[in-house]
Amino acid sequence: MLASYAARYRAHLEESVIPFWLQHSLDHEYGGQFTCLDRDGSIYDTKKYMWLQGRAVWMFSRLYNEFDHRQEFLDAATLICRFMRRYGRDPQGRVYFSLTREGEPYFYQRKPYAAVFYMLGLLEYARATGDQECLNEAIEVFWQIDRWIRNPALLDRPALTGNPPVSSLANVMVLASMAIELARVSDDLRYVQVIRDAMDGVVRHYDPQRRILIEHVALDRRDLRAWPEGRLFSPGHSIEVAWFLLHMLEFVPSEDHRRLAFDVLEGSLEYGWDREYGGLYYFMDIEGKPTLQLESTMKLWWPHTEAIYALTLAYTLTGEERWMRWLERVDNYAFRTFVDPVEGEWFGYCDRRGDLALTSKGGNYKGFFHVPRALLFSVQRIEGASFAQHRP
Amino acid sequence: MLASYAARYRAHLEESVIPFWLQHSLDHEYGGQFTCLDRDGSIYDTKKYMWLQGRAVWMFSRLYNEFDHRQEFLDAATLICRFMRRYGRDPQGRVYFSLTREGEPYFYQRKPYAAVFYMLGLLEYARATGDQECLNEAIEVFWQIDRWIRNPALLDRPALTGNPPVSSLANVMVLASMAIELARVSDDLRYVQVIRDAMDGVVRHYDPQRRILIEHVALDRRDLRAWPEGRLFSPGHSIEVAWFLLHMLEFVPSEDHRRLAFDVLEGSLEYGWDREYGGLYYFMDIEGKPTLQLESTMKLWWPHTEAIYALTLAYTLTGEERWMRWLERVDNYAFRTFVDPVEGEWFGYCDRRGDLALTSKGGNYKGFFHVPRALLFSVQRIEGASFAQHRP
Repeated sequence: MLASYAARYRAHLEESVIPFWLQHSLDHEYGGQFTCLDRDGSIYDTKKYMWLQGRAVWMFSRLYNEFDHRQEFLDAATLICRFMRRYGRDPQGRVYFSLTREGEPYFYQRKPYAAVFYMLGLLEYARATGDQECLNEAIEVFWQIDRWIRNPALLDRPALTGNPPVSSLANVMVLASMAIELARVSDDLRYVQVIRDAMDGVVRHYDPQRRILIEHVALDRRDLRAWPEGRLFSPGHSIEVAWFLLHMLEFVPSEDHRRLAFDVLEGSLEYGWDREYGGLYYFMDIEGKPTLQLESTMKLWWPHTEAIYALTLAYTLTGEERWMRWLERVDNYAFRTFVDPVEGEWFGYCDRRGDLALTSKGGNYKGFFHVPRALLFSVQRIEGASFAQHRP
Repeated sequence: MLASYAARYRAHLEESVIPFWLQHSLDHEYGGQFTCLDRDGSIYDTKKYMWLQGRAVWMFSRLYNEFDHRQEFLDAATLICRFMRRYGRDPQGRVYFSLTREGEPYFYQRKPYAAVFYMLGLLEYARATGDQECLNEAIEVFWQIDRWIRNPALLDRPALTGNPPVSSLANVMVLASMAIELARVSDDLRYVQVIRDAMDGVVRHYDPQRRILIEHVALDRRDLRAWPEGRLFSPGHSIEVAWFLLHMLEFVPSEDHRRLAFDVLEGSLEYGWDREYGGLYYFMDIEGKPTLQLESTMKLWWPHTEAIYALTLAYTLTGEERWMRWLERVDNYAFRTFVDPVEGEWFGYCDRRGDLALTSKGGNYKGFFHVPRALLFSVQRIEGASFAQHRP
């Protein structure tokens, strides 16, 4: 049963997703990657978005390192990585949000996330090439991000007195995601400590009544529930953190956190699934009040790719049927709603009913990342598990 | 025919819109106005959003000055104005985007718009009260905004080399909107010069092929059409600028600009109207490419209120049937889609089909402004025109 998923995901990755990006996204003239691609791969914005440059370097390098040692994966990673390193950081070492096609700075976001993906890209690229300079830069940027998250004023975000100290699930997540990758290649125990801290951080975001993770919790005693920020739930994000938590357990085993991860996965799916039209909502208010995000009820591709991998992982870890039933449901919805069988790759943005809201395959946040990562990880997971089962 | 619109708009303003905000939005404890109101008026965010504090001060004062000399309008304006002046500006005189309920600074947006509405509120409040200090502060803030728009680095938005000098329709508009109000109460000819500059600015945004105004045009020779920003069209905004332009003509008569205003009004309606489901799109790409805004095809209340007043104005100015036909269509769509006959006021956010996407009556951008302004201006316009017709 699961083996057929692996075969299908592998074929989809190799025949639909990778070719779309290899064919349409690379800028062989100026370097870097176009990510704003319309249905047929045509470019509707020549700017280079730094979140996505870093993510693509990571993804192409990871494919090269762990999926298929194809030169064109490494060439693509090199093309983007060189551009990114040459133009991506400002004189203070902060990473821009977007550049012009030629590499001139266009916008700076005052958030650490562009740097997160820059760092992840460099690290995986260093694994592919053995380039020590890239590895050193990745580690340097990691510790810089750690400082930026502790003190956002360094990113030109001065603390205002009405804005209390808050733990953001995104920040917990990105530190963990980087530390996991570093702990895979380094013995430095400080990375394991970051993972430990992130595991505690996740617990802080847990809402036991709804079995979900909420996006923002105050670090002082202030109650944030009078504000939409304090009631915000993103089903896809909560699901993503659930599988991250399962990955973290490889470094810091903990039965409590393992239980929490499965609980959050199931709770987020049950609470975040649209019972009328299917699919996972983008944002929800946990008290059913209005959100400030106009796009809350839209159906985006990435929560569904996160769910596909999280469920594959949960099923291969436990063998419990409940995960397989959810996987069938999510897989079915996602392939029916987002996949473009004609031109390849996934559309990203549908309305609540699942009708296409935008024809884009990529944009300033959708690039060569969520879809291939979920497919690769799922294939690796299933094939690994299946190998294990076939061992005598 | 038009008289029945005036009667209906007057009744709707007095019986549905004003009571909703008077009853639910005022914070008698800490001052200021709650704007995040759900369907029944219940508060889902206690923060005070500064764009909307300023807009509400302006609107309540304008109603007091020109619609009905009711003490409760002045009291509401006073309650909000005092809060806004006490807490709204940072030590450099810039206006915050949001405050906590108690008035502590929560977020600063690095845009001039909070200051624009702060200034407009003060100015109209000074008209209501004769408060010279408010008037002086309004004028001071006006010239500050003028400097900020010329040099965004003063708002902590340093110019990046890849970001060329661009004229933004929003900036053209807000300078004009403030100058129009100042020119009504002052003889200072510099305000008329700002209006003159704004009229030229509008021409720069004109797309003659589509008869619309586009949002961003480069001030140097750079072609912005390779970027979604350079192809962005907001039908509601273009329509709003059309009626602003007609208002500007009262100070700087110009047959060319008058023709342009009517041309843009018709072009924007024809190009921006959804022929399948009705209503005006929020954003469009003029080459039919994807936008970066996920909410582009959503139907928002405010483009429709702008169109209602613009069409009322156009019809009373010209008597041409084409405007009456469009007014019927827009009025019909808007009242069917957005108005809540049960609890009063308008919903703000529907999906492309016109189904409610959020149940909110107010938020961080929707407050006591677009709906009552359109209704008041339309009533004044129709009743003024009708008086004129009945003059011997």
